[in-house]
Amino acid sequence: MEIISGKWKCCIINRLANGAKRPSELHREFLDATPRVINQQLKELELHGIIKKEIFKELPPHSEYSLTEAGRTLLPLIAELEKWGAGYRPALKKILGLE
Amino acid sequence: MEIISGKWKCCIINRLANGAKRPSELHREFLDATPRVINQQLKELELHGIIKKEIFKELPPHSEYSLTEAGRTLLPLIAELEKWGAGYRPALKKILGLE
Repeated sequence: MEIISGKWKCCIINRLANGAKRPSELHREFLDATPRVINQQLKELELHGIIKKEIFKELPPHSEYSLTEAGRTLLPLIAELEKWGAGYRPALKKILGLE
Repeated sequence: MEIISGKWKCCIINRLANGAKRPSELHREFLDATPRVINQQLKELELHGIIKKEIFKELPPHSEYSLTEAGRTLLPLIAELEKWGAGYRPALKKILGLE
Protein backbone atom coordinates (compact mmCIF):
# COMPACT_ATOMS: atom_id res chain seq x y z
CA MET A 1 0.00 0.00 0.00
CA GLU A 2 2.87 2.42 0.69
CA ILE A 3 3.73 2.35 -3.01
CA ILE A 4 0.50 4.13 -3.92
CA SER A 5 -0.01 5.87 -0.58
CA GLY A 6 0.30 9.57 -1.16
CA LYS A 7 -2.37 12.01 -2.28
CA TRP A 8 -1.21 12.35 -5.90
CA LYS A 9 0.42 9.04 -6.75
CA CYS A 10 -2.64 7.36 -8.26
CA CYS A 11 -3.40 10.51 -10.26
CA ILE A 12 0.20 10.65 -11.55
CA ILE A 13 0.13 6.96 -12.54
CA ASN A 14 -3.18 7.51 -14.36
CA ARG A 15 -1.86 10.55 -16.24
CA LEU A 16 1.18 8.57 -17.46
CA ALA A 17 -1.04 5.75 -18.75
CA ASN A 18 -1.34 7.55 -22.10
CA GLY A 19 2.36 8.21 -22.51
CA ALA A 20 5.40 9.99 -21.11
CA LYS A 21 5.06 13.46 -19.64
CA ARG A 22 7.46 16.17 -18.54
CA PRO A 23 7.43 17.23 -14.87
CA SER A 24 6.15 20.67 -15.91
CA GLU A 25 3.17 19.04 -17.66
CA LEU A 26 2.34 17.11 -14.50
CA HIS A 27 2.65 20.25 -12.34
CA ARG A 28 0.14 21.99 -14.63
CA GLU A 29 -2.27 19.07 -14.35
CA PHE A 30 -2.31 19.17 -10.52
CA LEU A 31 -2.74 22.84 -9.67
CA ASP A 32 -3.92 21.94 -6.13
CA ALA A 33 -0.49 20.50 -5.38
CA THR A 34 2.80 22.35 -5.08
CA PRO A 35 5.58 21.31 -7.52
CA ARG A 36 7.58 20.26 -4.46
CA VAL A 37 4.90 17.71 -3.43
CA ILE A 38 4.55 16.39 -6.99
CA ASN A 39 8.34 16.11 -7.38
CA GLN A 40 8.57 14.23 -4.05
CA GLN A 41 5.90 11.74 -5.12
CA LEU A 42 7.53 11.36 -8.56
CA LYS A 43 10.83 10.57 -6.78
CA GLU A 44 9.15 7.94 -4.57
CA LEU A 45 7.35 6.34 -7.54
CA GLU A 46 10.66 6.24 -9.41
CA LEU A 47 12.48 4.80 -6.36
CA HIS A 48 9.84 2.04 -6.14
CA GLY A 49 10.19 1.19 -9.85
CA ILE A 50 6.65 2.30 -10.77
CA ILE A 51 7.80 5.06 -13.15
CA LYS A 52 11.08 5.79 -14.94
CA LYS A 53 12.74 9.07 -15.81
CA GLU A 54 14.43 9.74 -19.15
CA ILE A 55 16.74 12.70 -19.65
CA PHE A 56 16.97 14.21 -23.12
CA LYS A 57 20.25 16.08 -23.72
CA GLU A 58 19.17 17.82 -26.91
CA LEU A 59 18.60 21.57 -26.49
CA PRO A 60 16.73 22.60 -24.49
CA PRO A 61 17.57 19.62 -22.22
CA HIS A 62 14.51 18.15 -20.52
CA SER A 63 13.30 15.00 -18.78
CA GLU A 64 10.23 12.84 -19.15
CA TYR A 65 8.53 10.36 -16.85
CA SER A 66 6.80 7.22 -18.07
CA LEU A 67 5.26 4.11 -16.53
CA THR A 68 7.36 0.99 -16.09
CA GLU A 69 5.82 -2.42 -16.80
CA ALA A 70 5.17 -2.79 -13.07
CA GLY A 71 3.52 0.62 -13.08
CA ARG A 72 1.17 -0.46 -15.86
CA THR A 73 -0.01 -3.45 -13.79
CA LEU A 74 -1.33 -0.99 -11.20
CA LEU A 75 -3.72 0.70 -13.66
CA PRO A 76 -6.64 -1.80 -13.29
CA LEU A 77 -6.35 -1.65 -9.48
CA ILE A 78 -6.38 2.13 -9.48
CA ALA A 79 -9.40 2.07 -11.80
CA GLU A 80 -11.22 -0.18 -9.29
CA LEU A 81 -10.28 2.11 -6.39
CA GLU A 82 -11.53 5.16 -8.31
CA LYS A 83 -14.77 3.36 -9.21
CA TRP A 84 -15.27 2.54 -5.50
CA GLY A 85 -14.46 6.14 -4.55
CA ALA A 86 -16.90 7.58 -7.08
CA GLY A 87 -19.63 5.27 -5.80
CA TYR A 88 -18.97 6.22 -2.18
CA ARG A 89 -18.60 9.97 -2.74
CA PRO A 90 -22.33 10.90 -2.25
CA ALA A 91 -22.46 9.00 1.06
CA LEU A 92 -19.17 10.53 2.16
CA LYS A 93 -20.42 14.04 1.34
CA LYS A 94 -23.48 13.38 3.50
CA ILE A 95 -21.35 11.99 6.36
CA LEU A 96 -19.03 15.02 6.21
CA GLY A 97 -22.01 17.39 5.94
CA LEU A 98 -20.81 18.73 2.59
CA GLU A 99 -24.22 18.47 1.03
CA MET B 1 -7.77 7.13 -2.29
CA GLU B 2 -7.47 9.37 0.77
CA ILE B 3 -9.90 7.11 2.59
CA ILE B 4 -7.42 4.24 2.65
CA SER B 5 -4.29 6.38 2.40
CA GLY B 6 -2.37 5.95 5.61
CA LYS B 7 0.12 3.27 6.53
CA TRP B 8 -2.17 1.22 8.78
CA LYS B 9 -5.68 1.79 7.44
CA CYS B 10 -5.82 -1.24 5.16
CA CYS B 11 -4.40 -3.42 7.94
CA ILE B 12 -7.00 -2.09 10.41
CA ILE B 13 -9.84 -2.71 7.94
CA ASN B 14 -8.57 -6.25 7.36
CA ARG B 15 -8.33 -7.00 11.09
CA LEU B 16 -11.95 -5.86 11.61
CA ALA B 17 -13.16 -8.13 8.81
CA ASN B 18 -13.60 -10.96 11.33
CA GLY B 19 -15.46 -8.92 13.91
CA ALA B 20 -15.30 -5.99 16.31
CA LYS B 21 -12.10 -5.26 18.19
CA ARG B 22 -11.14 -3.03 21.10
CA PRO B 23 -8.55 -0.29 20.46
CA SER B 24 -6.14 -2.09 22.82
CA GLU B 25 -6.44 -5.26 20.72
CA LEU B 26 -5.55 -3.28 17.58
CA HIS B 27 -2.60 -1.60 19.32
CA ARG B 28 -1.24 -5.05 20.22
CA GLU B 29 -1.61 -6.24 16.62
CA PHE B 30 0.43 -3.34 15.20
CA LEU B 31 3.47 -3.16 17.45
CA ASP B 32 5.40 -1.18 14.79
CA ALA B 33 2.93 1.68 15.19
CA THR B 34 2.42 3.94 18.19
CA PRO B 35 -1.08 3.90 19.79
CA ARG B 36 -1.29 7.59 18.83
CA VAL B 37 -0.90 6.77 15.11
CA ILE B 38 -3.38 3.89 15.29
CA ASN B 39 -5.91 6.06 17.19
CA GLN B 40 -5.53 8.84 14.59
CA GLN B 41 -6.17 6.45 11.71
CA LEU B 42 -9.12 4.89 13.59
CA LYS B 43 -10.56 8.39 14.02
CA GLU B 44 -10.17 9.14 10.30
CA LEU B 45 -11.72 5.79 9.27
CA GLU B 46 -14.63 6.50 11.64
CA LEU B 47 -14.99 10.08 10.31
CA HIS B 48 -15.17 8.68 6.76
CA GLY B 49 -17.83 6.13 7.70
CA ILE B 50 -15.61 3.09 7.09
CA ILE B 51 -15.70 1.88 10.71
CA LYS B 52 -18.00 2.57 13.65
CA LYS B 53 -17.29 2.82 17.37
CA GLU B 54 -19.52 1.32 20.03
CA ILE B 55 -19.18 2.27 23.69
CA PHE B 56 -20.14 -0.30 26.30
CA LYS B 57 -21.08 1.25 29.65
CA GLU B 58 -21.01 -1.95 31.63
CA LEU B 59 -18.07 -2.21 34.07
CA PRO B 60 -15.31 -1.93 33.11
CA PRO B 61 -16.52 0.50 30.39
CA HIS B 62 -14.86 -0.11 27.02
CA SER B 63 -15.31 0.61 23.33
CA GLU B 64 -15.16 -1.53 20.21
CA TYR B 65 -14.60 -0.74 16.57
CA SER B 66 -16.29 -2.63 13.74
CA LEU B 67 -16.64 -2.28 9.97
CA THR B 68 -19.59 -0.46 8.51
CA GLU B 69 -21.30 -1.81 5.40
CA ALA B 70 -19.24 0.64 3.33
CA GLY B 71 -16.12 -0.61 5.07
CA ARG B 72 -16.94 -4.19 4.10
CA THR B 73 -17.14 -3.22 0.42
CA LEU B 74 -13.47 -2.22 0.61
CA LEU B 75 -12.30 -5.72 1.60
CA PRO B 76 -12.09 -7.19 -1.95
CA LEU B 77 -10.18 -4.10 -3.17
CA ILE B 78 -7.73 -4.32 -0.31
CA ALA B 79 -7.27 -8.03 -1.02
CA GLU B 80 -6.39 -7.18 -4.64
CA LEU B 81 -3.96 -4.49 -3.52
CA GLU B 82 -2.27 -6.90 -1.12
CA LYS B 83 -2.06 -9.59 -3.82
CA TRP B 84 -0.40 -7.05 -6.13
CA GLY B 85 1.95 -5.98 -3.34
CA ALA B 86 2.95 -9.56 -2.52
CA GLY B 87 3.66 -10.23 -6.20
CA TYR B 88 5.76 -7.09 -6.53
CA ARG B 89 7.68 -7.47 -3.25
CA PRO B 90 10.63 -9.54 -4.68
CA ALA B 91 11.20 -7.01 -7.47
CA LEU B 92 10.91 -4.12 -5.01
CA LYS B 93 13.46 -5.73 -2.67
CA LYS B 94 15.87 -6.02 -5.60
CA ILE B 95 15.24 -2.40 -6.65
CA LEU B 96 15.81 -1.18 -3.08
CA GLY B 97 18.88 -3.42 -2.72
CA LEU B 98 17.33 -5.26 0.22
CA GLU B 99 18.29 -8.63 -1.10
